Amino acid sequence: MKYLFFLFLLFLSNFGNAQSVQSPSGKIVLNFKLAANGQPLYAVSYKNKAVILESALGIKLKEKPALDANFEILTSKNSSFNESWKPVLGEQSSIENHYNELIVSLINKESKVKMNIIFRAFDEGVAFRYDFPKQADLNYFIIADEVTQFNLTENNKVFWIPGDFDSNEYEYNETKLSEIDNSKINMNNGIGVKSIPGKYMVQSPLMMKSPSGLYLNIFEAAVVNYPVMHLNVDVKNYKLTAQLVPNAIGDRAYLQTPCVSPWRTIMISNDARDVVGSKMILNLNEPSKIDDTSWIKPMKYIGIWWEMHVGKSTWDYAGSQNATNFADAPKASGKHGATTENTKRYIDFAAKNGFDGVLVEGWNVGWEDWNGNWKEEVFDFVTPYPDFDIAAISAYAKSKNVKMIMHHETSGSVANYERHLDRAFENMVKYDYPAVKTGYVGKIIPRGEFHDGQTMVNHFNFVAKRAADYKLMVNSHESSRPTGYGRTYPNYVAAEAARGTEFNAWSIGNPPMHETILPFTRLLGGPMDYTPGIFEIKMSYYDKNKTEQVHTTLAKQLALYVTMYSPIQMAADLLENYEKYPDAFQFIKDVAVDWDESKYLQAEPGDYLTIARKAKGKESWFLGAITDENARKTEIKLEFLTKGKKYKAIIYEDAKDADWKKNPIAYKIKTMIVTNKSKINLNLAAGGGTAISFEPIN
Amino acid sequence: MKYLFFLFLLFLSNFGNAQSVQSPSGKIVLNFKLAANGQPLYAVSYKNKAVILESALGIKLKEKPALDANFEILTSKNSSFNESWKPVLGEQSSIENHYNELIVSLINKESKVKMNIIFRAFDEGVAFRYDFPKQADLNYFIIADEVTQFNLTENNKVFWIPGDFDSNEYEYNETKLSEIDNSKINMNNGIGVKSIPGKYMVQSPLMMKSPSGLYLNIFEAAVVNYPVMHLNVDVKNYKLTAQLVPNAIGDRAYLQTPCVSPWRTIMISNDARDVVGSKMILNLNEPSKIDDTSWIKPMKYIGIWWEMHVGKSTWDYAGSQNATNFADAPKASGKHGATTENTKRYIDFAAKNGFDGVLVEGWNVGWEDWNGNWKEEVFDFVTPYPDFDIAAISAYAKSKNVKMIMHHETSGSVANYERHLDRAFENMVKYDYPAVKTGYVGKIIPRGEFHDGQTMVNHFNFVAKRAADYKLMVNSHESSRPTGYGRTYPNYVAAEAARGTEFNAWSIGNPPMHETILPFTRLLGGPMDYTPGIFEIKMSYYDKNKTEQVHTTLAKQLALYVTMYSPIQMAADLLENYEKYPDAFQFIKDVAVDWDESKYLQAEPGDYLTIARKAKGKESWFLGAITDENARKTEIKLEFLTKGKKYKAIIYEDAKDADWKKNPIAYKIKTMIVTNKSKINLNLAAGGGTAISFEPIN
Repeated sequence: MKYLFFLFLLFLSNFGNAQSVQSPSGKIVLNFKLAANGQPLYAVSYKNKAVILESALGIKLKEKPALDANFEILTSKNSSFNESWKPVLGEQSSIENHYNELIVSLINKESKVKMNIIFRAFDEGVAFRYDFPKQADLNYFIIADEVTQFNLTENNKVFWIPGDFDSNEYEYNETKLSEIDNSKINMNNGIGVKSIPGKYMVQSPLMMKSPSGLYLNIFEAAVVNYPVMHLNVDVKNYKLTAQLVPNAIGDRAYLQTPCVSPWRTIMISNDARDVVGSKMILNLNEPSKIDDTSWIKPMKYIGIWWEMHVGKSTWDYAGSQNATNFADAPKASGKHGATTENTKRYIDFAAKNGFDGVLVEGWNVGWEDWNGNWKEEVFDFVTPYPDFDIAAISAYAKSKNVKMIMHHETSGSVANYERHLDRAFENMVKYDYPAVKTGYVGKIIPRGEFHDGQTMVNHFNFVAKRAADYKLMVNSHESSRPTGYGRTYPNYVAAEAARGTEFNAWSIGNPPMHETILPFTRLLGGPMDYTPGIFEIKMSYYDKNKTEQVHTTLAKQLALYVTMYSPIQMAADLLENYEKYPDAFQFIKDVAVDWDESKYLQAEPGDYLTIARKAKGKESWFLGAITDENARKTEIKLEFLTKGKKYKAIIYEDAKDADWKKNPIAYKIKTMIVTNKSKINLNLAAGGGTAISFEPIN
Repeated sequence: MKYLFFLFLLFLSNFGNAQSVQSPSGKIVLNFKLAANGQPLYAVSYKNKAVILESALGIKLKEKPALDANFEILTSKNSSFNESWKPVLGEQSSIENHYNELIVSLINKESKVKMNIIFRAFDEGVAFRYDFPKQADLNYFIIADEVTQFNLTENNKVFWIPGDFDSNEYEYNETKLSEIDNSKINMNNGIGVKSIPGKYMVQSPLMMKSPSGLYLNIFEAAVVNYPVMHLNVDVKNYKLTAQLVPNAIGDRAYLQTPCVSPWRTIMISNDARDVVGSKMILNLNEPSKIDDTSWIKPMKYIGIWWEMHVGKSTWDYAGSQNATNFADAPKASGKHGATTENTKRYIDFAAKNGFDGVLVEGWNVGWEDWNGNWKEEVFDFVTPYPDFDIAAISAYAKSKNVKMIMHHETSGSVANYERHLDRAFENMVKYDYPAVKTGYVGKIIPRGEFHDGQTMVNHFNFVAKRAADYKLMVNSHESSRPTGYGRTYPNYVAAEAARGTEFNAWSIGNPPMHETILPFTRLLGGPMDYTPGIFEIKMSYYDKNKTEQVHTTLAKQLALYVTMYSPIQMAADLLENYEKYPDAFQFIKDVAVDWDESKYLQAEPGDYLTIARKAKGKESWFLGAITDENARKTEIKLEFLTKGKKYKAIIYEDAKDADWKKNPIAYKIKTMIVTNKSKINLNLAAGGGTAISFEPIN
């Protein structure tokens, strides 16, 4: 502690005459200065304690002088901003965007290139971006590297995944900063395409906790026309450096002034709830560019999907992934999931149980030879298999007031998808599918590009834009992780972009702590289609030889509907499994997917999370509490409920002997009458959770 | 000569027990054998004289064993083929496809991979391709290199251009094989993007003439899902080796069995007319995949195009190529060519003078900042400039029975074009444009790809296919050079893909011999949109300070309508220039663009060319005779005319004092009555030509 205090004195003295900006609360201070060589530097403190030591800023250009030194300050300007805005769909119906801003305008003394650095200080963190104004000395330019550093003070605890340019579907590692090492982790993890450029490269959002209990999160916002930023870790000096994902020929980004980089964000708080509940990333994105958003609607859905993961049926008509002669001699295997008959069964179930939508994967020709061979022309996105009568299904769904969700697996062949995109979306409009789940399994085409490069970032954003032309919602899987673009294109309703539930079906799966970390990382940038709701936890149910399983209890699966926010939320299990547990299923039927308010009651990354949310436009509340591999007892005060109102609380919790590994399905349900003065004791099993619905009693 | 005879004896003895195939005439013999190490080898003779010495065949794969040795022969099979087929548009209404075939089926003794080599011998040359059958031991594969060699016997004269992966718009060099050297040629030639990988790399078609007077041409046919083949020249040993154009990461081609390589072709004759008149390249392509071709029609057209090249008007609305702020503040410069008013003037002219179409370039937003910066989103292909009323123009053209030709400049941003292609084509259908001229000026996006790589070959073919969906014809500029795909997609009516007329307006231009070479090279693969018909030859006409000029006489410009075959043929000059020379213009009005018959009367690459053609479905004939920088007198027998018929011949020829440099416009026109027994003396000025129309007299 003495050492840190000394650091802070040094920090203060270094930045004595520097530009600075502080959070509205005053707790967070960011200082800026130029080094003797004209290098831009910044540092950040929280409650007078250094959090980010003097760290470099700047950009290196291809075939032009670097923008990382030789600067002088032209002007600097401080201002304040405070507004509220209403997301179309969200965790709360109104979001406050309150920050102080510092704009430092720089000019390079040699090249005369002007660059601004824009800093914003929010109560839960700081953000900055590079701004390249239109100017005679800089029009088109290519970013060769970004030198942005995050010079940390301590050997923090870190929740990290490898800085893979092609996949973010890893389980989290919880280690000290000094222990980060990609060579030591289990790579037999079910991920198909891996591109990890070094031992010490990690992904953001990077969630950390300092030895003294400070929660730190490094991320980015508004990644638009720019590659994803990974982080190179200096494990000895606790220094992180931006690593932009390259394109096929090693360039990072092609830009034209005026333009901006994404925001680099650092969240800081001694209360983990400030991080998990932060809307800073959304606030740093542009407002909606869609004028009429009336067609963007939340959806709770079921689908023909988990049955393929558990081996009950197949995506492809011929029952194999290698029947390359499909065009010549299609032979139905009898195991195809996406049949007209099966789809109608799902539509019936959706109609009966109040689901908005039905997703069907494997409906279209191409699955017989789609994966692993860098094949360019796989799907045309419009041609159904012979046993999927799309017109009849569309009409049947309409008659039952159920919406169909289209699936577009691209197999990573983005060039092919873009070529067919208008036709694919026209086909959706024709058959009244309001939403598409896109997939990007496999190496990217154009060949040499990565999932996280500028080309692909632009692609994901382009798909959202083009979908908006057709009034379609997008839920992308295997995309780069969102950084708040859903504010700008609210039809980009969700993404996977992290390790989802499916890995539990056929790999080492997602450990019990997984879902306690995602809200501190992946979910900061936007909703995740995690596809919860698995009731038959163990895969041995389907095949006695299988040892894979979901690493939660059934009750925790229910709680995930509250803790894993998504406005397009799946009930992923097989219909017959829901029919076996109708009392537990009731929670999935009841739970909302769009919210007026969210209360982050208890939070510790990697350990536990308790959130209560109020259904949008209703008086109902829902609570989800989850824990990691450790059982947990806690008491919750129901202060969030409306004062004076009585509620019927239905509590779905782990049975006494429940355990994610030994006895995962055991749950019990109890009902109580409560008010905002009530308290509820929660008993979470190892890998368990509790879900509660609060229905007002008139 | 003795040396060559010895070589041939060697050749015979080497191939004594080998597989062979000979041309129907028996003049050309191709022998195949395996070397001791199992390497496939071939050799070719013409009239018992070696033309291609023992040369290597084979393919190298990425991450798999090479397919260039260790083979043994499974079977070999000889057969014959003879049929006639009718091209939709063409130089003749019926084409004979007559060849003998040898299929050698090989198996690699180590990898067990099977590969066939298919050889065909036509009367004017031989062709071979690699055929990879569907097999357990080879499914997906990546071509790393092709080892195909053409081991020539002599230090031939060669008409060559550098083996540039991005451009084929060079003037030809006429040297000995031993003198090929890209470092010695003038690169200040107006070509914007150049990617030349070595000193000794040249392009095919490579036209050669041996010291003993044999004409040789090395090319390829049916380049589909494969990169373009350039040729690496061993200038000491006269050995050429295939050089496939790589993609962004250095791979050559991604294939899946069953599949084939393009055909490698070697034309051989002691009569140059056999080469220039050959339909071998077309014959080696697949028949039409378009069932109803009734909408594919020849077009003679004018357009708003040359006026931009000569500086009278601009493509972009704002009169500059750098007004990057167009979106904010478009300001008309008054020089914009593609205005509604100007377009109507062209439509009027077309209607009055019997032209089928009007091309308009610069009609759409984007030209204000389109070139040279590897910019991805330039054009959307549907948004007209404010002064181009596309609806009104479409209606006006319709009322005058004139068809509009759309222009889609992609600026090389193919990713962007493909994204917009359906919308662009829908827009064409909406406004009744039956044909599109596409452009690919600039470095390709996806970045790292070359104009001649597999990705781009697939793109050009894809555009033709997709255009066929909308019943649209395509004329691509700055594409890879055609290899006969116009047989398979007859709506792919023409391409530029060589140095066209425009270079004369603002660069060192095209030397007088240029048009005597193109029919022996570029045109073998399909029609070229060369845009002839320039009457105001010297650019000083527009600006006294300009020294650029077209390197022909006016009469030669007329002759090009016959010698440079294209079913979509432009009269490229300004309307006012045609109005100044109405008598000469009469030939352009009269000349046909689609033909029943073509007679190649006189031909010497680099020197001269005389062709007579019969208009399709008519009794009219047209003759074009051109020469290089040397004046030429010759006598033509009119034996091609129908026996017993009288014709009125209108002869458009160089005036006595005409000279491409000193006095290019001087022409005279005379009229004669002729029969098929008549002879006509042609007097071609230096850089000159003669055009003749033969109209039957009833």
